[in-house]
Amino acid sequence: MTGARFITFEGIDGSGKSTQARRLADTLRSRGDDIVLTREPGGAPGAEEIRRLLVEGDPDRWSPETEILLFTAARRDHLETTIAPALHRGATVISDRFADSTRVYQGAARGDLRDLVDRLHDMVISREPDLTLVIDMDPEIALNRGLARASGEDRFEDMGLDFQRRLRAGFLDLAREHGLRCRLIDGNRPADEVAADVLKAVDA
Amino acid sequence: MTGARFITFEGIDGSGKSTQARRLADTLRSRGDDIVLTREPGGAPGAEEIRRLLVEGDPDRWSPETEILLFTAARRDHLETTIAPALHRGATVISDRFADSTRVYQGAARGDLRDLVDRLHDMVISREPDLTLVIDMDPEIALNRGLARASGEDRFEDMGLDFQRRLRAGFLDLAREHGLRCRLIDGNRPADEVAADVLKAVDA
Repeated sequence: MTGARFITFEGIDGSGKSTQARRLADTLRSRGDDIVLTREPGGAPGAEEIRRLLVEGDPDRWSPETEILLFTAARRDHLETTIAPALHRGATVISDRFADSTRVYQGAARGDLRDLVDRLHDMVISREPDLTLVIDMDPEIALNRGLARASGEDRFEDMGLDFQRRLRAGFLDLAREHGLRCRLIDGNRPADEVAADVLKAVDA
Repeated sequence: MTGARFITFEGIDGSGKSTQARRLADTLRSRGDDIVLTREPGGAPGAEEIRRLLVEGDPDRWSPETEILLFTAARRDHLETTIAPALHRGATVISDRFADSTRVYQGAARGDLRDLVDRLHDMVISREPDLTLVIDMDPEIALNRGLARASGEDRFEDMGLDFQRRLRAGFLDLAREHGLRCRLIDGNRPADEVAADVLKAVDA
């Protein structure tokens, strides 16, 4: 039994990170761990209201700067309302996406805004995960999975293969830059094999 | 005929600033000026969506930090979508509240957050009004007016007389600190007299 760990899953859309986050939560729960499985944007009632602004309606109604402020507001609420209280009581928090997603998505879309993302993070978030599992996957496969899912919600899935390739490069850079907390997992394999690698990284 | 001026009205709830903003807009329009009358929070379709998060539902679901981020996101959208384009075409923009409201309200509620408000403003807003009309009014009269209006929307009206007194002090400080762009208007008089003073300040 382990506790008070903050684990995040990152990767491009369709990389299987939501599935892997859920599987990890189930496995750790079956061991008797206190687990909070959450996601971004959202993960708390207020943050989910902000999520709806970001993922529903015409996505082009927000400028990148406004969008970054909204993501940061949602993350602050998620951190205060869900993540910090759970860690405080000793639970393990597993989040499908966190601050790295904003860094990588904004870096891929508008590199000049990376500084704004980082300064806002330092001002109102600060907290980094203890462990980040970066699920790496071929963008072509991931894009097909994402489109097949057709949630009708995720605006980023509409942005095409070139954008997904830049995102993948961004996540690989992230895993290198933050080598201490990030583990790169090869997602181009059956889900069982990926899940086994995820569990190995968590238990290490 | 004048153009490309950014005029804001500030003051506590019930001070009559919305009425005065509308009257000024009507007067300047009757002279043939190109006028955009707007308000905060809101003032643009996206910003109005964020406004609804702030003024509807349980106001206590947001921490002060999250609330400041949401106000800043709404202001960025308002500035980009409504204010900047109008000024660019040479119009006069009249806004019922702007950044000063966040400074004064947060200063009165949680003084330690004033630094966060200022740093966010510097990062993503920057623009200050050319002229700010601070409508000063006795909080007891203003509070009664505000409650009588019973819009059911403005959460700040529920915070009581002590809070309104701190707000009034905050707006008086603001008018002193920013003496170059602020004009203090005595709002404890019939609306016609107040409007005449407002117009004098605008024409000066």
